[in-house]
Amino acid sequence: MPRFDTETYVQGVLQGDRRMIAKAITLIESTLHQDEEQTQEIIGQLLPYCGKSLRIGITGPPGAGKSTMIEALGLHLLKNKRRIAILAVDPSSKLSGGSVLGDKTRMGRLMANNDIFVRPSAAGETLGGVARKTRETMLVLEAAGFDTVLVETVGVGQSETVVADMTDFFLLVALPNAGDELQGIKRGIMEMADAIVVNKADGPFEDSAKQAAHVLRSALQVMHHPRPDWELPVFLASARTGLGIDEIWKSMLRFQEVMMANGVLQSRRREQNLEWMTTLVREELERRFDSHPEVQYLMPDLRRKVSDGRITAVRAASMLMQAFAVG
Amino acid sequence: MPRFDTETYVQGVLQGDRRMIAKAITLIESTLHQDEEQTQEIIGQLLPYCGKSLRIGITGPPGAGKSTMIEALGLHLLKNKRRIAILAVDPSSKLSGGSVLGDKTRMGRLMANNDIFVRPSAAGETLGGVARKTRETMLVLEAAGFDTVLVETVGVGQSETVVADMTDFFLLVALPNAGDELQGIKRGIMEMADAIVVNKADGPFEDSAKQAAHVLRSALQVMHHPRPDWELPVFLASARTGLGIDEIWKSMLRFQEVMMANGVLQSRRREQNLEWMTTLVREELERRFDSHPEVQYLMPDLRRKVSDGRITAVRAASMLMQAFAVG
Repeated sequence: MPRFDTETYVQGVLQGDRRMIAKAITLIESTLHQDEEQTQEIIGQLLPYCGKSLRIGITGPPGAGKSTMIEALGLHLLKNKRRIAILAVDPSSKLSGGSVLGDKTRMGRLMANNDIFVRPSAAGETLGGVARKTRETMLVLEAAGFDTVLVETVGVGQSETVVADMTDFFLLVALPNAGDELQGIKRGIMEMADAIVVNKADGPFEDSAKQAAHVLRSALQVMHHPRPDWELPVFLASARTGLGIDEIWKSMLRFQEVMMANGVLQSRRREQNLEWMTTLVREELERRFDSHPEVQYLMPDLRRKVSDGRITAVRAASMLMQAFAVG
Repeated sequence: MPRFDTETYVQGVLQGDRRMIAKAITLIESTLHQDEEQTQEIIGQLLPYCGKSLRIGITGPPGAGKSTMIEALGLHLLKNKRRIAILAVDPSSKLSGGSVLGDKTRMGRLMANNDIFVRPSAAGETLGGVARKTRETMLVLEAAGFDTVLVETVGVGQSETVVADMTDFFLLVALPNAGDELQGIKRGIMEMADAIVVNKADGPFEDSAKQAAHVLRSALQVMHHPRPDWELPVFLASARTGLGIDEIWKSMLRFQEVMMANGVLQSRRREQNLEWMTTLVREELERRFDSHPEVQYLMPDLRRKVSDGRITAVRAASMLMQAFAVG
């Protein structure tokens, strides 16, 4: 691909030039060492212009209608003069990149608009890699003046945690079913949410959506909520009829206001930055360990023995660390 | 302390000699390098005799009555001819070691019996260290013929996860309060439970305990349960009157039977062993990184810059890893 110098990327992004934004993101997604170096230079220069958007993560079990919810929210935000970036974290899909973004027909309405930027999930072998590239893409779009970032998680692996760790507000989209069928919500997700929306609350599902909201509110009674100054709301909504969409958006704005006033949003972002650094260091340490020839030689046999309880984990770990130190 | 040779420890433990069991555990808890080496030798020889107990983790918010519940369960198990070991994982308390175990008067009834072995939490600077020593203590007690191990968590830090990762069955003791007060249950804990018991369901608390059980059952409706072939039960119990204690114990036995028949218990233990090895390796890698002089020199400044968003986490991590490689 034709490359530009760092200054060209930086100025293009800051001027909101869509072609240069797209090229910068392509550079971010490259796995060539040289491109990764340049990416860091570009983002280093863009950093002073980043961080001004409201970052919203959106998750939910399959079938809950995350895609239509994002589309409805996106259109609503456009009416409210926001400039929106829509990203997805989907390590499982290298091409389609997230359910919402794969559906070209549906997203057509959004993609035509200049105040919206839709980017499918970055390709990547690992969730960590995808997360890293999504974060960097988010920074570029913030520097380009997008003031609202929606990041969709597709619910594979630990992608919810990854998205929660890079956003300010985490929205859980739930099915309009009470009882067993609601169990599609993965463990630990409800406790990460800043708001829950029971989607498809229209037509034949209206009653069951109401019941689902009731059950969710009961469940929330027994859970510990980590956010100060925030009562987790449960909304009824319909992406089809528009029910609840404005209410959800107002709730996000209120959340941002409250969390900036009490300083939680700022400290959360600082923690996210540090946590991200720690994660990158840990991943790299483990990569070096895993690719060490002596470690690779010993590992299969030690795993079998530890698994079967023939030697202790402590003994095996000690042998592995000795092998790692020697090489 | 006077030391014995490895053979003496091993034979003493296998014969169930209480004095030698206690001395072996003291050796496990030692932080001297020489003692750690001998510990690994001893446990290596005991391993073929380990793993035959039912391992039960017990957690709950402060005030839920974990201590009295463990005492009531312990006495009930004695009547059922079980041989019981009671341990605690409490990184915060180096002396008392867990709420139940600190209360000498209360536990007196149990400690007098030869079929029960009560051991306070191992001393340790880190949760990982305490966890490691508790695991090794558990193995020694299994080799000594104790067929039921109760491990109490005191709810500090990640101690619940640590205990869940070393046990077969995880019991959550809840308060007899519905609504807001139930929020004392830490996030993610309900989803780790194999059974929940609402304690103190007697006298003035009977009605609110029933209501709490109802609310908990509703909450469970919307959660995802990872165990196959197991419907998570919610019991009412009173450690004071004995209500529900036999029911809880029968549920644990049924759980063991079901999970051995479908192979989940065995595969869970294999995964726990491997996970433990991985954790030890990761801790040691991070310890080496954190104690590296160049890393220590760079870290404070980089943390400030990353935290404030002046440089990216990627750039900082890359600088740290370069420093680590050079040294």
